[in-house]
Amino acid sequence: MFLFLLWISEIKKCNSANRKTVKIYILVFGPSSLSFRSHTCGELRSDHVGHTVTLCGWVQYLRNDLFVILRDFSGLTQILIPQEESAGHLKAVLCDLTAESVIKVTGTVRQRPAGQENKGMPTGDIEVLAENVEVFNVSRKLPFEIKDFVKKSESLRMQYRYLDLRSSHMQRNLRLRSELVMRMREFLCNVHGFVDVETPTLFKRTPGGAKEFVVPSREPGRFYSLPQSPQQFKQLLMVAGVDRYFQIARCYRDEGSKPDRQPEFTQVDLEMSFVDQTGIMSIVEGLLQYSWPAEKGPIKVPFRTMTHEEAMRDYGVDKPDTRFSMKLIDLSEVFLSTEVEFLRSALSHPGGCVQAVCVPGGAVRKETFPVAGSRPLLGSLRLQCADVLESHGVSLREPSVFHFLWVVDFPLFLPKEDEPEQLESAHHPFTAPLPEDTHLLYTEPHKVRGQHYDLVLNGCEIGGGSIRIHRASEQLHVLKNILREDPSLLSHLLEALDSGAPPHGGIALGLDRLVSIMVGASSIRDVIAFPKSFRGHDIMSCAPDLVSEEELKSYHISVRWPTEQGGGGEEGK
Amino acid sequence: MFLFLLWISEIKKCNSANRKTVKIYILVFGPSSLSFRSHTCGELRSDHVGHTVTLCGWVQYLRNDLFVILRDFSGLTQILIPQEESAGHLKAVLCDLTAESVIKVTGTVRQRPAGQENKGMPTGDIEVLAENVEVFNVSRKLPFEIKDFVKKSESLRMQYRYLDLRSSHMQRNLRLRSELVMRMREFLCNVHGFVDVETPTLFKRTPGGAKEFVVPSREPGRFYSLPQSPQQFKQLLMVAGVDRYFQIARCYRDEGSKPDRQPEFTQVDLEMSFVDQTGIMSIVEGLLQYSWPAEKGPIKVPFRTMTHEEAMRDYGVDKPDTRFSMKLIDLSEVFLSTEVEFLRSALSHPGGCVQAVCVPGGAVRKETFPVAGSRPLLGSLRLQCADVLESHGVSLREPSVFHFLWVVDFPLFLPKEDEPEQLESAHHPFTAPLPEDTHLLYTEPHKVRGQHYDLVLNGCEIGGGSIRIHRASEQLHVLKNILREDPSLLSHLLEALDSGAPPHGGIALGLDRLVSIMVGASSIRDVIAFPKSFRGHDIMSCAPDLVSEEELKSYHISVRWPTEQGGGGEEGK
Repeated sequence: MFLFLLWISEIKKCNSANRKTVKIYILVFGPSSLSFRSHTCGELRSDHVGHTVTLCGWVQYLRNDLFVILRDFSGLTQILIPQEESAGHLKAVLCDLTAESVIKVTGTVRQRPAGQENKGMPTGDIEVLAENVEVFNVSRKLPFEIKDFVKKSESLRMQYRYLDLRSSHMQRNLRLRSELVMRMREFLCNVHGFVDVETPTLFKRTPGGAKEFVVPSREPGRFYSLPQSPQQFKQLLMVAGVDRYFQIARCYRDEGSKPDRQPEFTQVDLEMSFVDQTGIMSIVEGLLQYSWPAEKGPIKVPFRTMTHEEAMRDYGVDKPDTRFSMKLIDLSEVFLSTEVEFLRSALSHPGGCVQAVCVPGGAVRKETFPVAGSRPLLGSLRLQCADVLESHGVSLREPSVFHFLWVVDFPLFLPKEDEPEQLESAHHPFTAPLPEDTHLLYTEPHKVRGQHYDLVLNGCEIGGGSIRIHRASEQLHVLKNILREDPSLLSHLLEALDSGAPPHGGIALGLDRLVSIMVGASSIRDVIAFPKSFRGHDIMSCAPDLVSEEELKSYHISVRWPTEQGGGGEEGK
Repeated sequence: MFLFLLWISEIKKCNSANRKTVKIYILVFGPSSLSFRSHTCGELRSDHVGHTVTLCGWVQYLRNDLFVILRDFSGLTQILIPQEESAGHLKAVLCDLTAESVIKVTGTVRQRPAGQENKGMPTGDIEVLAENVEVFNVSRKLPFEIKDFVKKSESLRMQYRYLDLRSSHMQRNLRLRSELVMRMREFLCNVHGFVDVETPTLFKRTPGGAKEFVVPSREPGRFYSLPQSPQQFKQLLMVAGVDRYFQIARCYRDEGSKPDRQPEFTQVDLEMSFVDQTGIMSIVEGLLQYSWPAEKGPIKVPFRTMTHEEAMRDYGVDKPDTRFSMKLIDLSEVFLSTEVEFLRSALSHPGGCVQAVCVPGGAVRKETFPVAGSRPLLGSLRLQCADVLESHGVSLREPSVFHFLWVVDFPLFLPKEDEPEQLESAHHPFTAPLPEDTHLLYTEPHKVRGQHYDLVLNGCEIGGGSIRIHRASEQLHVLKNILREDPSLLSHLLEALDSGAPPHGGIALGLDRLVSIMVGASSIRDVIAFPKSFRGHDIMSCAPDLVSEEELKSYHISVRWPTEQGGGGEEGK
């Protein structure tokens, strides 16, 4: 995996004060470069027999006062404890070690005696006869053992996250994520000329940004806001002529305690100028194909594309799980002349229909609906059927199969839930209409479809993006006349569009979700080093925490306690 | 710079609804892949003569109704406007363009007529005869012209940042920063096995973290804090066995209006297990050497190392500018038997001395001091002398020369300014003592030197790091007995150190500062896409902004206006 090379650098003066000792410095590439160790615990093989090596790691366990099993991120190595009397001190130190203590061992690699090889262990052909040991740290008794098969409660895992991360599967998840992102960067920067630009996270509150955290400043009443995405900045970068922007962007969303959401999360965020929808979709396909881990098998591009209308018709949802069929079937025509009263009644309503899901090896589940709005119900029924079938041993959704799907041609606007006469953006107000629908913006805006595209993986939305409106007049019309929002709140963006904005578009992929599906994790918490709990808490450090009224003074805020007495804030501690 | 390859991908269904049109898709690598353009405005040469090309960009200016100079991020190309009557419409459209309008031009590359080449322009040998034009956007009259020689006020630049970024030097700065970071990632991930781990920015308030922004949560009185660095997390990752961590980390510091500081800034943050001070210093040297832009010339490693004591003695500062000499000279001995009264008096005080700076080609500037504390004054005098000399044409500090310097062996603790009996950490409480000074922790802590290292470039501190304390008992002694802090606030870290913590250390480099020195920018604002003003404002969008009392309710806070009437908060809008 790594290229190992050796060089002897210049002779270097020792750092400490005036002592003129010199050190000859050997620089090694790879994971053991510049380290106390010569090798990792996962790499020794029969080829190394006879070599003197130094390993550093954690004591996994001791066996029969004869072996120490030493672990680091890369695996395990068996250390043989010398039994001769002359090595009495060494033996005493090693046999005295508690599990999870940290040591450095120097010794000689030996072939294990015939019959004692462990084929299930990559280093199982060898062992290291200890000649020297240094104990860096002795571990106390831990709240749980670091063994993959030991079950731990979620709250214990979160409280001792630094122990939970020692498990081989969390190590694998974090490393796979790091490697994936590195490959993505190579593809975007080195292959396609993207510029990695960091955008601010202390920004102005977005109009209607109810889910944005606020950050008080030292000016009374004035707050920054932690943005939900770099949307405005990436469009401004296109106006600025940056041409191709990307960023692995930290985003913030205050959603209280929605399941499997995090108050801060990460987006692969990109934007391109002089490009159309097909161009963005192809870049994303190339990006995923290029960065996809080899161990997960190749993925095929282009991905399947489906219109929003098809998705709703056939799957009852805008993010269909296309790993299995069981499409929704419209049986209305079959029952047109039925005598069954409740079916007749349902069909007699405007838009009334009879729809079904055909469950393989089972019955047809049929649902009748007097009005439209049936599809989401049936779509969720379809997924429930799949769950039931799989719990009975029918294999529908193979975990190692990845079905990517583009969903396109979404409606640009939807009626507001509480005010159906009024329209709101289906995604955000910057999405451009389909070229052939643009004229409808001025006549029948509810019919306009947008140049928006969602990327769906195994029934989860993992990304969404659009071609943006690049003309100020069109953007103003959408904000003012269709959405009836105050355009002055976005005056800087409108001004920017009026200053020579190129046609542009982009996408954001949810990195946490993508990696969690890739590794088959049940929660995005398993692919984030230090996630928050359901309720947004860091259980390890107790964040969020109380802050004294004194400390809040410089931000000109005070706490409004729920049981307020007399209106003023109380001492926060 | 880019590898150009062509392939024809599979035939792809058009996205829109049911129309069964097909598109043949050509994927090109490089900055024009998947784009409306075939080439960038900076790349055409004589080799391209005869080719039909499509360029997209901004109208830099029109000349004599004969030429349009078209610009994108990569440079300029001269577009020749056809003059035949048959091309009348095309000519009219082109001649009507305002500066900074955005167009797409298709045409044929021609050699410029002999004598009309422009040697100062990389594309100056050719021009493109326009055959077709599409106007994407017409630009209004802008507040300033996009020409490098046009002077703009700082506030105008900030207000119209999306225009300011169109300048060639800002384009260069952002691209150089992106490329530098990419090379750093390659070095750390691909060459040395580091893992890129994202750490949270919504965290718990650090004890004494007066400069940390607070973020109210939906639980009354409870706040997150935006951390100044991922210090605790990176140490916990080492305890977690991640072995080598790095992150291009967003950090936050609320410093009000210190000059050339930003409320959010970026660190190249790394941490390694099983490594000593020399190892970290070598990784950083390798990192900078590997990622240093070729155009800035090679840099030599290892960097020079100086103890804190030497730095203070010879330069009067802990971040010496070693591009020029003019060291401080102690003349006390020379004047031991002087008759001059004020010198005698100064020398008679305990620690009194006579020191001088020898200015080349000028006089010796001599300063006498009755007590110690003279060095910082003289150190700043040294820099002032350099300024004066350079303003008189003496070349001391060549802008293209980069002098890296390690400063080591800092004192671990310093007396508190307002309470000199009491010690505080010179850097932070996690720094380990020099091994030979460890015993002094328990007897004379003020004499302990730390395993801390600062990296200085041309007299600016661009990074700092240390080997950390990895034993819980030592960390507890430092917190409780020396610093007299409440150790319960760091109980999670103390528990972690007690759970098998490896020896570890790391460093953080200030990326904004490093890039600004590299490109010779006078302010870090010139290497950040959307910086805040001196006062922490985003002038373009008006952040921070007023937030209504209503919106603050869910965070259980209210604003304390400076002219409070009756104690309660008032409406914030």
